[in-house]
Amino acid sequence: MGEAILKREQVRDYLLELIETHPAGAPIPAERVLCQRLSVSRPTVRSAVDELVNTGLLVRQHGRGTFVARAKITQEMVADTGAMALPRASGTWESRVLEHARIPAGARVGRRLHLSPAAEIHYIARLRLVDGEPMAVEYLHVPASIAPGLTVHDMESGDFYDRLREHGVHVHEAVQSIEPTVTNESEASILGVPVFAPALLFERLTTDAEGRQVEYVHSIYRGDRYRIVSRLTLGDAAARGTVDVQARFGGDPF
Amino acid sequence: MGEAILKREQVRDYLLELIETHPAGAPIPAERVLCQRLSVSRPTVRSAVDELVNTGLLVRQHGRGTFVARAKITQEMVADTGAMALPRASGTWESRVLEHARIPAGARVGRRLHLSPAAEIHYIARLRLVDGEPMAVEYLHVPASIAPGLTVHDMESGDFYDRLREHGVHVHEAVQSIEPTVTNESEASILGVPVFAPALLFERLTTDAEGRQVEYVHSIYRGDRYRIVSRLTLGDAAARGTVDVQARFGGDPF
Repeated sequence: MGEAILKREQVRDYLLELIETHPAGAPIPAERVLCQRLSVSRPTVRSAVDELVNTGLLVRQHGRGTFVARAKITQEMVADTGAMALPRASGTWESRVLEHARIPAGARVGRRLHLSPAAEIHYIARLRLVDGEPMAVEYLHVPASIAPGLTVHDMESGDFYDRLREHGVHVHEAVQSIEPTVTNESEASILGVPVFAPALLFERLTTDAEGRQVEYVHSIYRGDRYRIVSRLTLGDAAARGTVDVQARFGGDPF
Repeated sequence: MGEAILKREQVRDYLLELIETHPAGAPIPAERVLCQRLSVSRPTVRSAVDELVNTGLLVRQHGRGTFVARAKITQEMVADTGAMALPRASGTWESRVLEHARIPAGARVGRRLHLSPAAEIHYIARLRLVDGEPMAVEYLHVPASIAPGLTVHDMESGDFYDRLREHGVHVHEAVQSIEPTVTNESEASILGVPVFAPALLFERLTTDAEGRQVEYVHSIYRGDRYRIVSRLTLGDAAARGTVDVQARFGGDPF
């Protein structure tokens, strides 16, 4: 059987080993050195380096070389009783409102939030920063009836769910989907990454303790600075009952 | 506050509503019709359609128009006792071995699997298909000492973990990371998608009931056909104890 894939994987593996055993900012050897050391062609090395630059594990500085990037911010997902919890991700998170308006929900968001299309919602686009650096753009949709007095300040200061609690809304659980995407021009410019950079698209529908739909969010997270880690149960345990999360979105695809 | 983002979001929302309320294969209106209907410029419509084509929710057929794509295969993650379980994803899954070899683990894979770099492993690149269609490329690394008699047949017939069980290896749990990436040329050609198409990169380290590292896998899943859905616990419950999943990878970044 051919070994084309294996060869490429071994170059990738060699580079990942360098990345994992060196501090952020450490230079990696020049391409011609890597070619010699690994006995592979220049295009093979180039394409492996390109991929790791693209996914944010290496940083290329024009005319200076290629360097190990900082470790990604890690979001854990851990199992709670019957659902998963999201412990706080690493780093210090802040929010900055980019745009907000009170608008009619429209057909799609209205369906998600169990509202008439004409019902008013708070629409908020906000930037999430970690340690002062842009990490994600979030688009929130909150029924105006749930928190009529919601302010821009509420969206920027501390935990949004804490602010909702002050408005008498106790978030309880959410159904969340994760898909890969790439940044568009506007997101790229806001996040400070190239256009078409790998990113994660999250969609989340949040319900409160009374079973009301209180928030529909979609957000774009930088792929070069963010990853999700979880611990999975395999084998016999995994065969046990599941939850039909689809049903919570009214049976629609997201 | 400006409404540039809002305008674009409303076009996206309108298109998503069409997608969610029409069957796969249904045509969406021509761009000029959408411009009129939504009172937005051609570039705004074009860029919203492009994005949904790019992430696989719409399919553009040259000279014919743009159509609603099939629903994505959904992988649920559900909470089990202290960890998450992966119920079987929708569709019929098969595997095809692309490449396999017995090779030394090397420094990085050796570290993951708690092996000397010189220790032999099974390296297997395999294609995962759902309902006969390419969905993912998986690169597996299994210590040769764990399952010395592992065959290509084992990698292609039914559930790999069932085959491991026949070799006396009972998989128990895994730590898995999820990051966005884009396909390289080789993956694009194997998966039948364009180069630089959005994809999910999984890395997984699997341990068996005896605590041995039995499998290190990284895999590339098509973003246009795959998504992950989970139910999250929010509020007070979410503040409860977490598991340091990082530690299971020996403290290294992946």
